[in-house]
Amino acid sequence: MTTIKEIAQTCGVSVTTVSNVLAGKNKVSPETRQKILDEVKRTGYQPNFMAQGLRGSRTRTVGIIAEDICQFTTPGLLDGIMMQLEEEGYRATIKNLRLYSRWSDRWYDLEEKYRSVFDPAVQELLASRVDGIIHVAGHARVIPVYPRDLEKPVVMAYAYSESAQIPSIVPDDEQGGYSMTKYLLSKGHKRIGVLAGREDNIHSKLRIDGYRKALEETGLSFDPDLLVYANWNKQSGYAQTRQLLKQSPNLSAIFCLSDEMAGGALEYLRDRQIDVPGQISLAGFDNRNLTEYTQPALTSMQLPLIPIGKRSAQILLDKILLDASSAEQSEQVLVERIPCTIVERDSVTSCK
Amino acid sequence: MTTIKEIAQTCGVSVTTVSNVLAGKNKVSPETRQKILDEVKRTGYQPNFMAQGLRGSRTRTVGIIAEDICQFTTPGLLDGIMMQLEEEGYRATIKNLRLYSRWSDRWYDLEEKYRSVFDPAVQELLASRVDGIIHVAGHARVIPVYPRDLEKPVVMAYAYSESAQIPSIVPDDEQGGYSMTKYLLSKGHKRIGVLAGREDNIHSKLRIDGYRKALEETGLSFDPDLLVYANWNKQSGYAQTRQLLKQSPNLSAIFCLSDEMAGGALEYLRDRQIDVPGQISLAGFDNRNLTEYTQPALTSMQLPLIPIGKRSAQILLDKILLDASSAEQSEQVLVERIPCTIVERDSVTSCK
Repeated sequence: MTTIKEIAQTCGVSVTTVSNVLAGKNKVSPETRQKILDEVKRTGYQPNFMAQGLRGSRTRTVGIIAEDICQFTTPGLLDGIMMQLEEEGYRATIKNLRLYSRWSDRWYDLEEKYRSVFDPAVQELLASRVDGIIHVAGHARVIPVYPRDLEKPVVMAYAYSESAQIPSIVPDDEQGGYSMTKYLLSKGHKRIGVLAGREDNIHSKLRIDGYRKALEETGLSFDPDLLVYANWNKQSGYAQTRQLLKQSPNLSAIFCLSDEMAGGALEYLRDRQIDVPGQISLAGFDNRNLTEYTQPALTSMQLPLIPIGKRSAQILLDKILLDASSAEQSEQVLVERIPCTIVERDSVTSCK
Repeated sequence: MTTIKEIAQTCGVSVTTVSNVLAGKNKVSPETRQKILDEVKRTGYQPNFMAQGLRGSRTRTVGIIAEDICQFTTPGLLDGIMMQLEEEGYRATIKNLRLYSRWSDRWYDLEEKYRSVFDPAVQELLASRVDGIIHVAGHARVIPVYPRDLEKPVVMAYAYSESAQIPSIVPDDEQGGYSMTKYLLSKGHKRIGVLAGREDNIHSKLRIDGYRKALEETGLSFDPDLLVYANWNKQSGYAQTRQLLKQSPNLSAIFCLSDEMAGGALEYLRDRQIDVPGQISLAGFDNRNLTEYTQPALTSMQLPLIPIGKRSAQILLDKILLDASSAEQSEQVLVERIPCTIVERDSVTSCK
């Protein structure tokens, strides 16, 4: 028996689009519409009327749990999610857990604290009969807080779930580390220092994996003296740049895994009268607003916040539609990684 | 007849605090508690039992309408609101209108566009039976969109309402302009240029009023050649600094009404080989993250986002409690201005 998913795949569109066309909504081009209707006719697909009945009871509202709206990544993720939801005729209700504002970084492993704010927020969303939930994490890690028997679909944005039922949409940190390293190598740099974030952090680990992969591809071996860890912020970037230069005085470029640390590195190099990029090239990560205001302006890596948000919403809507049809199983999207893109400015130059 | 408001005023606490004490909640110090109970006894105050009945039907949830979570001011305002709500045992549900993301700056006067996203959001909040609404504006202006017969109290945060029923909590832009000008005058600057935002903007107008007031107090007259308008962003700051220096080549300081414009000014002065602060002192406004990354680090004016948020929540909760009691009228807080504070960094020095 043909499923709505197969129709969508054959036509190269989303399940939501097929559903919209079948529901008579005019949201696609006439060509796409005709293509879908032709395919429906060809396969003899029968919409699941039981599911359509259920569909009628939906609220077309999605709940969003934001771990903290004050994290710099959150507004962009929310914007992408809502952009996509609105295109499909869905609304959103946002709950803000304020985890970082409340407890700085001393809550990651305190499940009790987490639950004291998370559980009521989920209960309120369920009570208001949302059709599904998107969890917007403040930073990437495994977040195992959703009960397995939750009756609504959930998608994890910017972090990893531990459940096959909850797809995770994350930035491709390894590719980001790899691409920036390849870029620096293409400029002739061979001794590339890395100013990483916290050592136990997934973003750090994967970006370093990408860095090592790019070196190995180029026939360079990994030198542990070229790697130091810091705490993501400017102050720790300043202090650890000193340490990095002590370990590896002959490096020609520093790849900082956050823009704020790059700002600290820049200040340390300026205090030491080391010219950027004349003597040392400097690259950041995150492509925050500040990159346009440093002197020189900072080459960085754009996090795909809007795309992660849009894709999370798309996958959730597909799950909402599929879950309403008992005859179909949703595809097991475990982890989907969205690529990061380099933004070139003035802080990297060719190695002499 | 004594009212709960009078008890609160005599004891120097909020109406919510009195209400909490009368409801037997242990949220205040034993001293405050005793003071309130003594005052209740002294005045013979009788809680309005009808109102308490109504109170029981409340959801203890406040709705927040954010004009755009991607505006840099919004996360801080939301954080302050939720901090205060949680202290009082209330929760929040957020709706994000995405006005700036959707329509850039081409929507201010298009009431039809505004209503197409605003009306459904308010309806959804009312349908979920929130006890009141806080409107978080993306920038200050008069926002006349709430119907007069709305059955729930509303507070306007970061903008002005046109209704006596809707208090407005805003940054004290005039005091911000005044304080920064006084600060520059105290450093010996007498020719102080102003790089303002859009001319029709309330923030621009009030900050310029403050600038003029400070000059007049010091016996200096306002010179129109020292004022140029730009569009808040870096690019326009760069272009209009050129214009300002053409009009007033002998200025010794520039007061920029946004940090991003100050970043543009800094870049223009660097391109012209004019040292900051050696030859020209530079001050910004907003105290954004970027101020710590410019070279030199930028002296700026902190917007009171958390305090505006907290105060908005406090006033809304007072209105929720008072509105439940037909015997009392809520105080007419029309506009409450919260002061801005200077953050000194390295871009201002004494005039030689």
